[in-house]
Amino acid sequence: MINVGIIGYGYWGPNITRNFVSHPGFQVLKVADNRPERREKLKSLYPHIEAVATAEEILHDPGIQAVAIVSPVFTHYQFAREALKAGKHVMVEKPMSRSSMEALDLINLAQSLGKVLMVDHTFLYTGSVEKIKELVDAGEIGKIDYFDATRINLGLFQPDVNVIWDLAAHDLSVINYLTQERPRSVQAIGKAHTSSGQENIAYLILHYESGMIAHINVSWVSPVKVRQMLIGGTRKMIVFNDIEPTEKVKIYDKGFSVKSDEDKDKLLIDYRHGDVYIPKVHMREALAGMVDDFYQSIKSDKEPRSDYHSGLEVVRILEAAELSIKENGREVKLN
Amino acid sequence: MINVGIIGYGYWGPNITRNFVSHPGFQVLKVADNRPERREKLKSLYPHIEAVATAEEILHDPGIQAVAIVSPVFTHYQFAREALKAGKHVMVEKPMSRSSMEALDLINLAQSLGKVLMVDHTFLYTGSVEKIKELVDAGEIGKIDYFDATRINLGLFQPDVNVIWDLAAHDLSVINYLTQERPRSVQAIGKAHTSSGQENIAYLILHYESGMIAHINVSWVSPVKVRQMLIGGTRKMIVFNDIEPTEKVKIYDKGFSVKSDEDKDKLLIDYRHGDVYIPKVHMREALAGMVDDFYQSIKSDKEPRSDYHSGLEVVRILEAAELSIKENGREVKLN
Amino acid sequence: MINVGIIGYGYWGPNITRNFVSHPGFQVLKVADNRPERREKLKSLYPHIEAVATAEEILHDPGIQAVAIVSPVFTHYQFAREALKAGKHVMVEKPMSRSSMEALDLINLAQSLGKVLMVDHTFLYTGSVEKIKELVDAGEIGKIDYFDATRINLGLFQPDVNVIWDLAAHDLSVINYLTQERPRSVQAIGKAHTSSGQENIAYLILHYESGMIAHINVSWVSPVKVRQMLIGGTRKMIVFNDIEPTEKVKIYDKGFSVKSDEDKDKLLIDYRHGDVYIPKVHMREALAGMVDDFYQSIKSDKEPRSDYHSGLEVVRILEAAELSIKENGREVKLN
Amino acid sequence: MINVGIIGYGYWGPNITRNFVSHPGFQVLKVADNRPERREKLKSLYPHIEAVATAEEILHDPGIQAVAIVSPVFTHYQFAREALKAGKHVMVEKPMSRSSMEALDLINLAQSLGKVLMVDHTFLYTGSVEKIKELVDAGEIGKIDYFDATRINLGLFQPDVNVIWDLAAHDLSVINYLTQERPRSVQAIGKAHTSSGQENIAYLILHYESGMIAHINVSWVSPVKVRQMLIGGTRKMIVFNDIEPTEKVKIYDKGFSVKSDEDKDKLLIDYRHGDVYIPKVHMREALAGMVDDFYQSIKSDKEPRSDYHSGLEVVRILEAAELSIKENGREVKLN
Repeated sequence: MINVGIIGYGYWGPNITRNFVSHPGFQVLKVADNRPERREKLKSLYPHIEAVATAEEILHDPGIQAVAIVSPVFTHYQFAREALKAGKHVMVEKPMSRSSMEALDLINLAQSLGKVLMVDHTFLYTGSVEKIKELVDAGEIGKIDYFDATRINLGLFQPDVNVIWDLAAHDLSVINYLTQERPRSVQAIGKAHTSSGQENIAYLILHYESGMIAHINVSWVSPVKVRQMLIGGTRKMIVFNDIEPTEKVKIYDKGFSVKSDEDKDKLLIDYRHGDVYIPKVHMREALAGMVDDFYQSIKSDKEPRSDYHSGLEVVRILEAAELSIKENGREVKLN
Repeated sequence: MINVGIIGYGYWGPNITRNFVSHPGFQVLKVADNRPERREKLKSLYPHIEAVATAEEILHDPGIQAVAIVSPVFTHYQFAREALKAGKHVMVEKPMSRSSMEALDLINLAQSLGKVLMVDHTFLYTGSVEKIKELVDAGEIGKIDYFDATRINLGLFQPDVNVIWDLAAHDLSVINYLTQERPRSVQAIGKAHTSSGQENIAYLILHYESGMIAHINVSWVSPVKVRQMLIGGTRKMIVFNDIEPTEKVKIYDKGFSVKSDEDKDKLLIDYRHGDVYIPKVHMREALAGMVDDFYQSIKSDKEPRSDYHSGLEVVRILEAAELSIKENGREVKLN
Repeated sequence: MINVGIIGYGYWGPNITRNFVSHPGFQVLKVADNRPERREKLKSLYPHIEAVATAEEILHDPGIQAVAIVSPVFTHYQFAREALKAGKHVMVEKPMSRSSMEALDLINLAQSLGKVLMVDHTFLYTGSVEKIKELVDAGEIGKIDYFDATRINLGLFQPDVNVIWDLAAHDLSVINYLTQERPRSVQAIGKAHTSSGQENIAYLILHYESGMIAHINVSWVSPVKVRQMLIGGTRKMIVFNDIEPTEKVKIYDKGFSVKSDEDKDKLLIDYRHGDVYIPKVHMREALAGMVDDFYQSIKSDKEPRSDYHSGLEVVRILEAAELSIKENGREVKLN
Repeated sequence: MINVGIIGYGYWGPNITRNFVSHPGFQVLKVADNRPERREKLKSLYPHIEAVATAEEILHDPGIQAVAIVSPVFTHYQFAREALKAGKHVMVEKPMSRSSMEALDLINLAQSLGKVLMVDHTFLYTGSVEKIKELVDAGEIGKIDYFDATRINLGLFQPDVNVIWDLAAHDLSVINYLTQERPRSVQAIGKAHTSSGQENIAYLILHYESGMIAHINVSWVSPVKVRQMLIGGTRKMIVFNDIEPTEKVKIYDKGFSVKSDEDKDKLLIDYRHGDVYIPKVHMREALAGMVDDFYQSIKSDKEPRSDYHSGLEVVRILEAAELSIKENGREVKLN
């Protein structure tokens, strides 16, 4: 039994807590939140868990071996750092930190202390992404030409980060997971509709050496909720529609091939309109998989799927995208 | 009765022809297409219309008073110019021409000769766009914050233009029609997946002085067909989903307002999740409206809704977008 | 070239006419409709076709070899009878006639005169039904347990027939086509909301010897349009959703099997939730296929797919269903 | 604080438990289930609640004032009876009992002992049904002509009841809630595909004195999940689609009116195709409302919304429908 403390019981905290509580290998000792009404909420559901007001009561508790950090982004670095230094394993909510500098520092710390440090990129544990990964790795899709992701709805404005840190982080983690290639450069354009200056609409474009392109449309001010990713491959195309209750992944035997390109004036294209196939995907709650991966990584000293490399790479792209937004869409090179 | 000749009987020509044939004020005398199988097709449906092989047989026919040009984009300028000079009224398929220079030249010609010159921006004649225009003009939506348009499917690659000239032209005509404001600058990024070099995926962003932003996502290589435009206003938001058979326009009493912006650290936002309203829209075929507008403009010497100004403005933005694509997303000023 | 005359240019007539006009083997000489405005409509689209006011001008024209009857149901028998007696081949709109007596009389006449007599059960010529037929015949679905069809919308009230003669006729033709088995009995319940007494809502249930059951829900007074048929087989299940623009046929590898039925108290059921498969279906207009089948049947003296047997069987079930409605759902045996 | 015991921790028990736990007025003392793995499940989530193996440990516990019965249908009567006799308030899962005789006996007992007896007809507490009730009561819909409900999916076969007791119970409770009128008679047809003889497909029709009709289609063997109720009124029509994540209730200003019925041969119908309106509905979890209604009824001695009359009426219709199925769709009078 691993004793765990959870920092933050806001929007996502209850889900994290429920999954740690349900996992047979974890025992949730304490949950911290500085808002009394949130602590009340916790106590009504779990009278046996101690509700504390400060993160310190978890970070300094020697009886706690693992910490889940589900507090605002700007606190991730400090809490994760203190937890690691106190000898605890750490799971931190996405995005991992506010900067790649911070992320690198945490990685170094985790490595030197031999502790697990993982990021909650929940989507990597969905049955849908697992199935798509399987198809991509098996070569079913062919070479990927493009990703086109849309993640929009009337969402909560985050006080400390803009919409790309909140929403695009999901798509970036999925794209990085599905392909080995890393973007060469990023361009982004955003728009703030409040005087806070935090963008609530943004468009990202990732350029890849291979010619692949990724486009991500994120918004907190859309009247409709869309959660969709198109993946265009040379052999097949995938639509991942996360709003669909069951038929989330559709594989289209659809596409085009260039017949003969010799003569530029005569563009001869063969279109393929074939069958569509909707594979059954595993319907387990993704968070349960993430929590179990945390457990297995602690127990067996293995790398979790959503490891710190993944966390760092996402933060690097977000950082570059934020810079590009400031400079009005300038192409920002990565490395 | 106005005698009309139609140049081009390819993908769109049959629709144009059917609507001119059905209009009581027009008599279709000739349709031109250089492909014998297209002429056969025409003759099987309309044995009473003369099928000719060359545009010249229409342009030089003194018995024809009006010409509809439905041939490839690169031919628009030449045919429209010849038709105007031959004293004919002209309706030209969108986009009006390959360059703003050409468009301006045609406009000057039409003005000096006193002939009607209009562009087939079909969407301006749909019941959906008419209804949205009515709502916007009545102030129901408030100030528009953003447009977000998606027009993607596995479409035909055009041989002479890229995907923005083919698809974004539609969204630009609608956006220009709905708002008085004209974009200050354009940024665009595109990707070609064939050696023709013509982009088959592109993302456009239009910047406006007022802070409004427009994003347009167009693609010929999507497995699914999406025809959607989101319009975010300060009072209400609209979703125009053209795939829906009947409920195409949805008005959301949904949005947010900033409660107090004094303290940047405390972002106080009020969310509004109200009713949704789906107005009945006129279901007439849009092309019938366009053809009738052409007729009324000739008869009453009035400006058509989809006039040459509209045609020119769309071409100007496309031109700038094409330049931006070449320069990798550089912001290109308009005017 | 077969000369054809079309009787009726109301709702369906224009579609029939367009398809006969486009078929290279037919020449449409005359179209009859007693409403002057319908004849005007015809003439504006097809100036070369003669618009006549009475069916007789077609039935007595010795230059016409084939007749399409697209007039109200109560006229089918008389017109078809006269046409056959005048030595013409006949295609009659569904339902074939108002009674099985009438249908049998027409069949006898056609047989004795050696003329083609077919019914326009258009759905048999859709790519969707062709694909489902192929799957059923190949044993992919297993033994069929049930059909469940819904065909509802705010539709036109027919003056001379109730909703089952208008709408259920479609589903019955499809069900009869897909399975060799014929229903043993019919039960039906209907409701009229006008004093005409013609039912505008009705529910039909067909019982089969094998245990198969079919349920058909038809309505002219539904706010939404539904065109759906579920087919439950022991191996797979099919959803045929005709509203979907492209993905009309979905095959579900879903179902249940009874593990052990020995002990009634312990019902052990194995559920199967597998993949879904959407086959590409032929997108040709169904009416074009029907018209071509008429042509081939005349030319090659073969039985059309939608032959008079099919027409008669549908009429028989409708007749029994109408009787059942009158007797409040009593089970009416068929033969 | 009311101490509560919950009998049954199977499919629905965890939801009931969670809502009692979250309610500030209830304290869950014990949950009973005879399956050890279910008790383990409970203990992992709520270590502070006592998991017991038998209902008796709850029924005979003097410290428990209220009991929620979430066990199989055939046990409802016995457990509710014992609980009432032990002086406890009772909430019983739908359907209330296996027969109207049993339901009447429980009602008498509750009345004589002055205890609350309510049925968990959860749907009455959904924001959707609340909104529809409001609209119907305000006369917005006009006189209701028909209900048409579909509740189908690949569902669990219940061991002790057929599909109508499981699924149609929901629709019957909603229909009874929305209208004052009670059905005059019932007809039902069902089909069993296992040798247990329990019907897994069934169609119910309710006849009303006023001419209103209700049709209910329920199935455990459908490949797709449908949860839809159409309500046709003389002024407006409603579609309640419970699968939709947010836009569950749509009100159509759509319909028809009979212009003049004098001459039966000339059916003159006026069609109305107006706007559609999607009201915002309260998104609270329905079960929370039901649990709170139980609490308020105990505290204030008021009638709960989903009271025993409602429970009895649903059982009466189910009983009649079961009889009708046995007699092949015979019309069974109610009262």
